[in-house]
Amino acid sequence: MGKVAVLGAGSWGTALAIVLADNGNDVQLWSHREEHAHEINTTHKNEKYLSGIEIPHSIHASSDMKSVVQSVEHIVLVVPTKAIREVCKELVGYLTQEVTITHAAKGIEPETYKRVSEIIAEEVPKEYYKDIVVLSGPSHAEEVSLKHPTTVTVSSQDLNVAATVQDLFINEKFRVYTSPDLVGVELGGALKNIIALGAGISDGLGFGDNAKAALITRGLAEIARLGTSMGANPLTFSGLTGIGDLIVTCTSAHSRNWRAGNKLGKGADLDQVLEEMGMVVEGVRTTKAAFQLSKKQEVDMPITSGIYQILFEDADPRDVVTQLMTRIRRHEMEDLTNILDDQMNN
Amino acid sequence: MGKVAVLGAGSWGTALAIVLADNGNDVQLWSHREEHAHEINTTHKNEKYLSGIEIPHSIHASSDMKSVVQSVEHIVLVVPTKAIREVCKELVGYLTQEVTITHAAKGIEPETYKRVSEIIAEEVPKEYYKDIVVLSGPSHAEEVSLKHPTTVTVSSQDLNVAATVQDLFINEKFRVYTSPDLVGVELGGALKNIIALGAGISDGLGFGDNAKAALITRGLAEIARLGTSMGANPLTFSGLTGIGDLIVTCTSAHSRNWRAGNKLGKGADLDQVLEEMGMVVEGVRTTKAAFQLSKKQEVDMPITSGIYQILFEDADPRDVVTQLMTRIRRHEMEDLTNILDDQMNN
Repeated sequence: MGKVAVLGAGSWGTALAIVLADNGNDVQLWSHREEHAHEINTTHKNEKYLSGIEIPHSIHASSDMKSVVQSVEHIVLVVPTKAIREVCKELVGYLTQEVTITHAAKGIEPETYKRVSEIIAEEVPKEYYKDIVVLSGPSHAEEVSLKHPTTVTVSSQDLNVAATVQDLFINEKFRVYTSPDLVGVELGGALKNIIALGAGISDGLGFGDNAKAALITRGLAEIARLGTSMGANPLTFSGLTGIGDLIVTCTSAHSRNWRAGNKLGKGADLDQVLEEMGMVVEGVRTTKAAFQLSKKQEVDMPITSGIYQILFEDADPRDVVTQLMTRIRRHEMEDLTNILDDQMNN
Repeated sequence: MGKVAVLGAGSWGTALAIVLADNGNDVQLWSHREEHAHEINTTHKNEKYLSGIEIPHSIHASSDMKSVVQSVEHIVLVVPTKAIREVCKELVGYLTQEVTITHAAKGIEPETYKRVSEIIAEEVPKEYYKDIVVLSGPSHAEEVSLKHPTTVTVSSQDLNVAATVQDLFINEKFRVYTSPDLVGVELGGALKNIIALGAGISDGLGFGDNAKAALITRGLAEIARLGTSMGANPLTFSGLTGIGDLIVTCTSAHSRNWRAGNKLGKGADLDQVLEEMGMVVEGVRTTKAAFQLSKKQEVDMPITSGIYQILFEDADPRDVVTQLMTRIRRHEMEDLTNILDDQMNN
């Protein structure tokens, strides 16, 4: 068992802290707001983000990052992609020991197109960490905290380090697998949020399960095309962090990205939706990053382009979805074999 | 436009007949029950199977198969897998012309392990048909008849024949793609019903979306392993008739297989469930066929085996699902790379 600092006390950070504490680890939980840390320590609840769940008394919360990370072996970063740089910059000021950094953020940075592990590696000098690990997979925080069976994958360049993270988290209900494909695991988790926005839009328009299944299937193909062009193993997109996470995010009203898409499909505009949600919707920034990236990589991503047009160019959702459904492609294999072609050209 | 006989007036047969009639084809619909045909002709409804939907008046229903198939160019077979042989035997007695036979059945025959196109080819002498085509994909009949956007795939050994079937069915809302992988399209449609039973069982036990997503992801991997060992293209399982159909069947209460699984997960036994449903649950027989086939092909199918045990060996659903979730596989790629290994060995 280890000494672990979880940075970020939203729903997923809190749920992961509970898994770690249940497994006997010594867990400190950092929140950027002092009153939030105080609430967790006194009520042993996190009502806003994880309503109704009892937090183990052994978890100590604090807004003082320096004290939280002192002498820990593991840091688990569970903040939105947008906040990763800022949190890392603060963290570096307090680190005196070598740690393993695990992140559970699902995004890509617009303009730079960096994955989260690349952002962390830019901000934290190498002497402070053994390796950077990603934890991803189909995992609603609410269900994890209710101890429903859940599977996730951890991945890092050094599989031995990923295995130490696997040991921290694994238990009978929370199953942790390892994968050597860091690029594919990070990209799958990030890009699936674009398709979740699309699934929400389709549902918001009143289309049915048939349309949504088509969108998810085609969406997976274009995610895999982009991912493979970036060096990912195409098989990863058929795994838990690809199709698994995509299914959970696209078919459940728990998902923020689906909910945001649903409001868009019903006619709301983006600013209105983001204000109403009051939480980070990773898919919005990721759509921008992936759209830019698809141009740079010269990869055809019709669904991502369509959602980009809805989000940032005021396109009518009904027109976009109808256009996507009637694209002239007579042979389904044309789309699918592109993936293998891309793979062979790498 | 063509002259088409649709054999089978259940929900899917009726929905496909409506698509064909909307496209201007001359459509005759065969039901094995005379009063059912009479109901369709007089009320232009099919209340039991497609409640609330208006059937175009141009569709003529009949229980006289001989008159229905007379001088048609296309026969569309939409009966349960179990009834395919019997219907083909009757059909052969009436055919005097060469037809294209399209089927939309999703099953495999236990003991013989035959796909539906193989069963048809055994029963109908080659001089009576140009080719046998399968139509499959993520398509709830209810949504198709409400003209919600839907995508399906048609496949046959001769792609030119598949293209004539594509022309019959395609319209703005009902998108039809072609695929050359007959084996993969038929197996994907059949085998996904096993996983749908599993998804229903998981939901019936009260497990959440995380567990179901894991089951679907792992299920897809084992379907692809078996399919590839039978000569299917593994990419087909990532397409509309693979993952697409799997998603629709596993995440919707419309699905009979999901509903049957759900009852099993809540503690009912198989006989009770089948009696309550009063409709054919293809997944039950397909589980038996696939379980036998996995032994013959020496393909590891833990989910199919588990569901077989629940259906036919009185195993406790909770024990089986828990066992599936805690199987010791530390590296996710072990499962996934098996698919490529199988492919390379073929």
